[in-house]
Amino acid sequence: MPSVLIKNGTVITMDRARRVVERCDILVEDDRIRAVGDVGASCDGGADRVIDATGCIVIPGLIQTHVHLCQALFRGMSDDMELLDWLRLRTWPLEAAHDEESIYYSALLGIAELLRGGTTCVVDMETVNHTENAFRAIAESGIRAVSGKVMMDWGDDVPEALRETGEHSIVASVELADKWDGAADGRIRYAFAPRFAVSCSDWLLREVGRIAARRGAYIHTHSSENRGEIEIVEAERGARNIIYLDRVGLLGPRTILAHCIHLDQSELDTLKRTGTHVAHCPSVNLKLASGIAPAPEMLDMGINVGLGADGAGGNNNLDQFVEMRLAALIHKPRLGPTVMPALRVLEMATRGGATALGMEDEIGSIEPGKKADIVLLDLRKPHASPGACADPVSRVVYSAHSSDVVMTMVDGQVAYGGGQLTNIDESEVLDRCDEAIVRLARRAGLAR
Amino acid sequence: MPSVLIKNGTVITMDRARRVVERCDILVEDDRIRAVGDVGASCDGGADRVIDATGCIVIPGLIQTHVHLCQALFRGMSDDMELLDWLRLRTWPLEAAHDEESIYYSALLGIAELLRGGTTCVVDMETVNHTENAFRAIAESGIRAVSGKVMMDWGDDVPEALRETGEHSIVASVELADKWDGAADGRIRYAFAPRFAVSCSDWLLREVGRIAARRGAYIHTHSSENRGEIEIVEAERGARNIIYLDRVGLLGPRTILAHCIHLDQSELDTLKRTGTHVAHCPSVNLKLASGIAPAPEMLDMGINVGLGADGAGGNNNLDQFVEMRLAALIHKPRLGPTVMPALRVLEMATRGGATALGMEDEIGSIEPGKKADIVLLDLRKPHASPGACADPVSRVVYSAHSSDVVMTMVDGQVAYGGGQLTNIDESEVLDRCDEAIVRLARRAGLAR
Repeated sequence: MPSVLIKNGTVITMDRARRVVERCDILVEDDRIRAVGDVGASCDGGADRVIDATGCIVIPGLIQTHVHLCQALFRGMSDDMELLDWLRLRTWPLEAAHDEESIYYSALLGIAELLRGGTTCVVDMETVNHTENAFRAIAESGIRAVSGKVMMDWGDDVPEALRETGEHSIVASVELADKWDGAADGRIRYAFAPRFAVSCSDWLLREVGRIAARRGAYIHTHSSENRGEIEIVEAERGARNIIYLDRVGLLGPRTILAHCIHLDQSELDTLKRTGTHVAHCPSVNLKLASGIAPAPEMLDMGINVGLGADGAGGNNNLDQFVEMRLAALIHKPRLGPTVMPALRVLEMATRGGATALGMEDEIGSIEPGKKADIVLLDLRKPHASPGACADPVSRVVYSAHSSDVVMTMVDGQVAYGGGQLTNIDESEVLDRCDEAIVRLARRAGLAR
Repeated sequence: MPSVLIKNGTVITMDRARRVVERCDILVEDDRIRAVGDVGASCDGGADRVIDATGCIVIPGLIQTHVHLCQALFRGMSDDMELLDWLRLRTWPLEAAHDEESIYYSALLGIAELLRGGTTCVVDMETVNHTENAFRAIAESGIRAVSGKVMMDWGDDVPEALRETGEHSIVASVELADKWDGAADGRIRYAFAPRFAVSCSDWLLREVGRIAARRGAYIHTHSSENRGEIEIVEAERGARNIIYLDRVGLLGPRTILAHCIHLDQSELDTLKRTGTHVAHCPSVNLKLASGIAPAPEMLDMGINVGLGADGAGGNNNLDQFVEMRLAALIHKPRLGPTVMPALRVLEMATRGGATALGMEDEIGSIEPGKKADIVLLDLRKPHASPGACADPVSRVVYSAHSSDVVMTMVDGQVAYGGGQLTNIDESEVLDRCDEAIVRLARRAGLAR
């Protein structure tokens, strides 16, 4: 069983005591953390590999509870637009133009950014077609992911290539789930992913609820991001968004709802009662002028909230450090300077994600027995110094950048280290992505 | 006359036409830009040095209109507090503990971060004492700066070491201005820097207004950051903050006011009428729960607005890329997704700063005749790719990180390049800063 000793770092464990342990070693055997503490002295010679973390801060792998890898290609092409325009004029036409190769390279591009930035696990929503190729990229790259094809059988202005019947959507999703749920030694899980109530028939949503319940599968969808969206749902389905999603059987402890910005008290109570999880996406909610989700209020109610970047087409990064800093900052003018302190934000970005996936015992903290998803940060840089009197958690949330990540380990494997991605040929991916977006933009009638 | 040819980059000129020129060369002679365009073919052999910018985006040096270099040491020690507590419990005690060496290294630490992140010019406010040492650091480092000692002769809870009489404050400021204004071939300018109305007597503010007017000197102060501050000024001086500052002669086209969050219409009109400049500091205004300044509204009125990070003790970065992204994002939920598009933000971060300093003809854009303050970005990275169909200005504002800066030139000199600061021994600065903050924290009774 191969073993790695990560030696002598300052470890922010994010265990229940949320300890910061200086000069701390972590022993990894195979895919799991075996010991945390002063273990180096006893087994240093025995480890197959020793990683010197002296001067580094060590954190659990970051978990993003809402991304779209298929949109990584669309970065920088659709700024300064509202959600519904952004979907109809840019994102849907570009998604419709995707082909097997472009889906694959878009996923690899997104994953390259994620692993370089310390994100070890994502909850991903693909587009209607070619999802197989995203799973292939996830499997090869080494990242942990819960992913699924998007489902949409309803609504206007949808390009031909994204139109599917509800029956087809179900069959295609079940096929993908049968093949990929639990793949790559359990690193990959499937999530049924109806886009949002605006894009899905009542029938489709009820079927998803029924099938996911029977399989114990994840459901991953968007909700209450935009006032226009809420009005459409209310007009068509006769209820507030969250109330409607509950009625059709989509809510529960296996469901992650992205955004949840515009909620009334009965909707908040419904999230709480059903144990539904929320993905807070501060950058994209600001950028699309959607608003600011009441994340602190939800946390105070006991609703579990994770953190994510959403798609690079909207964000335009897939960077948990950017999202952490924003999540710490944007609620303060409304609720005061002590709301969302650094530790609470780091918790949302790690344990919050683990809880959303029902993986509290597997990921989200550095503790013996858990999966070895671990990130090393070198903060001996002007922008994060001096460190002598600073709070390490503050340094991670308020000062660090994704470029400070020097090693990202997933499932006991170094997926990024020494400036290189282990399983991704980055230069080739960048070339292929430039070619792909030119092709897609032409197909979508958006070429510059 | 030494010449440098920056060859074959994609240049975002920020000239009046705001052109983006592909495959563009920039010829620098001595401290000035001599030519922009296809100049490489004619003089390539003639340039003393050629910098290959192929694949890079080239932007004007970024200008931060409000920073505190003396607070760089305090990073990560005072999070999640309100402005007035943050001043009284942390920042003032630590400023009072400063010594000559700590001021010097704090300035170098801040400048190291700034130059690495493409900031070529700052408007800096130091503390009461030892300001000479900050000027020494600025002179040595190669950065362009308008700086001055802070002035404060009023108010409670001020530590003994920061107390000064109005007369002393004036004498010390004038001495520094006589010595440093125009130093380092004009790279250094002096700004009279009364802290804010809460910390300055009516007499001191009027004297500053009088002396600065006589000398044509800059005035750099804080205003209307916090509701508590505004109440104190109104109670003590009988007017809203901006109205009061106008009354004592502090406003005008040589004055930069940091923050300006809570203003009524008469105050906005007063800024406009007097030609006073505003420094927008989005990170720190969120972090201290101060609010969101009406920057788009001010720009629409024709008030000039620059951008800055404020101090690293509050921010906790000195990173214009972080501030640009935030300035583009935080106004959108309030005013819609098309407000503060990327170009307007980049303009605020470059030309806006130049205008604030009355240096429109010297810095802020890449044009023949201007000072050679130039930044190269390598965006061939996953987090800023693909580039083939993306808007270059969007890439800079929404996707780029400060770590993408590969070269920072100030006054025709490469101050940062090849991963190294030309004039700063970074490793020594980091060591001295760790020592200094331990010493200061002990003196201030804040040692952990």
